[in-house]
Amino acid sequence: MNIYEQTHRARTASRSLRTLPVETRNSVLHAFADLLEARQDDILEANRLDIANAREMGIKEAMIDRLVLTEKRIAGIAEGVRQVAALPDPVGRLLEERVIASGICLKKFSAPIGVIGIIYESRPNVTADCAALCFKAASACVLKGGKEAYLSSKAISDLMREALQANGVTPDAVILLEKPTREETAVFMSCRQDVDLLIPRGSKNLINAVVTQASIPVIETGAGVCHTYVDESADFDMAEKIILNAKLSRPSVCNAMETLLIHENLKNTFLPRIARILAEKGVTIYADEEACGIVPDLKAADENSWHTEYNDLIMNLKLVHDTQEAIDHIETYGTHHSDAIITADTANAELFMNNVDSACVYHNASTRFTDGFEFGLGAEIGISTQKLHARGPMGLNELTTYTYRLYGKGETR
Amino acid sequence: MNIYEQTHRARTASRSLRTLPVETRNSVLHAFADLLEARQDDILEANRLDIANAREMGIKEAMIDRLVLTEKRIAGIAEGVRQVAALPDPVGRLLEERVIASGICLKKFSAPIGVIGIIYESRPNVTADCAALCFKAASACVLKGGKEAYLSSKAISDLMREALQANGVTPDAVILLEKPTREETAVFMSCRQDVDLLIPRGSKNLINAVVTQASIPVIETGAGVCHTYVDESADFDMAEKIILNAKLSRPSVCNAMETLLIHENLKNTFLPRIARILAEKGVTIYADEEACGIVPDLKAADENSWHTEYNDLIMNLKLVHDTQEAIDHIETYGTHHSDAIITADTANAELFMNNVDSACVYHNASTRFTDGFEFGLGAEIGISTQKLHARGPMGLNELTTYTYRLYGKGETR
Repeated sequence: MNIYEQTHRARTASRSLRTLPVETRNSVLHAFADLLEARQDDILEANRLDIANAREMGIKEAMIDRLVLTEKRIAGIAEGVRQVAALPDPVGRLLEERVIASGICLKKFSAPIGVIGIIYESRPNVTADCAALCFKAASACVLKGGKEAYLSSKAISDLMREALQANGVTPDAVILLEKPTREETAVFMSCRQDVDLLIPRGSKNLINAVVTQASIPVIETGAGVCHTYVDESADFDMAEKIILNAKLSRPSVCNAMETLLIHENLKNTFLPRIARILAEKGVTIYADEEACGIVPDLKAADENSWHTEYNDLIMNLKLVHDTQEAIDHIETYGTHHSDAIITADTANAELFMNNVDSACVYHNASTRFTDGFEFGLGAEIGISTQKLHARGPMGLNELTTYTYRLYGKGETR
Repeated sequence: MNIYEQTHRARTASRSLRTLPVETRNSVLHAFADLLEARQDDILEANRLDIANAREMGIKEAMIDRLVLTEKRIAGIAEGVRQVAALPDPVGRLLEERVIASGICLKKFSAPIGVIGIIYESRPNVTADCAALCFKAASACVLKGGKEAYLSSKAISDLMREALQANGVTPDAVILLEKPTREETAVFMSCRQDVDLLIPRGSKNLINAVVTQASIPVIETGAGVCHTYVDESADFDMAEKIILNAKLSRPSVCNAMETLLIHENLKNTFLPRIARILAEKGVTIYADEEACGIVPDLKAADENSWHTEYNDLIMNLKLVHDTQEAIDHIETYGTHHSDAIITADTANAELFMNNVDSACVYHNASTRFTDGFEFGLGAEIGISTQKLHARGPMGLNELTTYTYRLYGKGETR
């Protein structure tokens, strides 16, 4: 079946999902979770074949790590699906109701997006997460995963399709594309008539490729060059605790700190203190000239450093004259993801909160809290770093659109 | 100045707009409206040159009509700007406030989008409308209008820049690109670093070109193949009144009816009645075979007819077996803009309202109400026919994004 046929089947399926009761949607999700556990041997066998193929193709072990499934990971995936089933229904929420001037009663409801395309890499758990979230939001999904993980993703999506059929729902609500070629992927990204939204999940390169090639609307996720600014009046113990958390609790994720900005009046106090502690923790620091002059162990940063998302035990450090210079640096080099100020000065805090143009701006807290679960959304399909539709952590509500229903008595204009 | 330099100036300007008080924004808009009236002779002179150039270039009179300004139209433009000044501030609205599990206080505020690009054709009033709406929403805008109307748009945007400067605001909040070449326009549509959103306003061809070429997020506006379905139980007088309004009150606009669907049990009663009245009003009707067999004056529709937005005294007509067939037709041929059912049957009404996937779905009312002013938004930058960010009439609130501000006391994760 070609790409057009497959996306069109998803479109047809999406129409039957619009009025599918939430009880049925939840039953499908529970059946899916149960199947993931009952058939874990099939999934693990498919996964072993993927891993063997990947090794044969000479793929790096770091990449292979990402595609490995275990019994424990499958149990975690099933648990995640059950959590999605337990969340409130995001569609059909009455968002607004009023009588407009003409006398017509206007009701604004949350509504399914329709067909959501997900383009991702070699983590097979994304297959289950995205299928569950899109289905709960009453949208069909078309999945394009990395070819290294194809058999694992196929085993997982087949179970979802089985769960759909067992509940009398068309299996085309979840379609996994079968190792599309580069040309077929390009076609997929331009199927505007049958796909309403594309969400790329993965590396910066993947996201950039989707953003530049797709004609379907895209929600950009992920890239995070996050900053923490330590103002003159900061409590040093609090600043230290927040910085260590933001950098070290999970360096590989997008909400981890990449650049530390420090008020220059702290250059002989807090700067040497935090530089020493970070060095003890094994963090390599690229810093501006002035800071390098004070702490000899720091390496010299260049223009490129400030733009870099290391996702590793590496970071940048810069001395700034004041809050405004911190803001200017963040606006120039940041990715509008998450940025924090540590200060006891309310005026500086407000200046920072009002002028940093990021999805999440923090006062006296770690940027690591930018997360759908931490925000209480109950789930997360990604963290948007663009400004349209959704910003920051995207949960189920952000996977819906809205519709106006207008009830009249023969009104004309 | 090249395109990169110009969009970057807009980006820099947008940063100063983030905290510009609404009183200052409104003062600028009032000064702009006053200047439009005080300097109308300058605008009319520029407009005369545009028209003379357009005639010399052999541009069709229908196109030239669109670019003509008069004293009365300028007064209308100024009045529109004053109306925007009178609207509530769309930015800085507290949308949500709660304490998340970690103890951090989360506040979600509406926030400026940043830099908005508008690509439009030869109507110079768009220059003033868009400049006023974007500025009220605390965003900078970069305008690319049709070259036929360049001098008129320049005269108008120069007055806006003068109003900005007179109020101590950087004039780069509103930048009109100077007749960019095709290559420069392509560069403009890919300036992701400095433009957050593109809104094309104009013909289907213009919108399609922007959607397929741009890598900046686009909001699609305008295309409207709107349907009215007359169900078996409809009140004939109500149906007639709504149909004539939907088709005839302003045939050239996107919320006008293009296709009339009629329950086949009405083929010998309502069909001949409405066909005769529409013919008397000068409307040409393309219809399906069965309807053509009953009313001989109807012309035969083909597959292409059902997809066509005529924007003229031309329409389609089709007999359908039931509400579900009406829904299926709309989902196959519609543009997800506005569609109506005329019925006295509540179950059919709900079936239609729940299954037609359009921005606005009407029961017993004319589709012509899909309009920012009719919806009480006070202004309109366009009618979105896509599902991301905004759907249906877009007012000032739809020209904003949001930001999370998180207030902690040293929390770490």
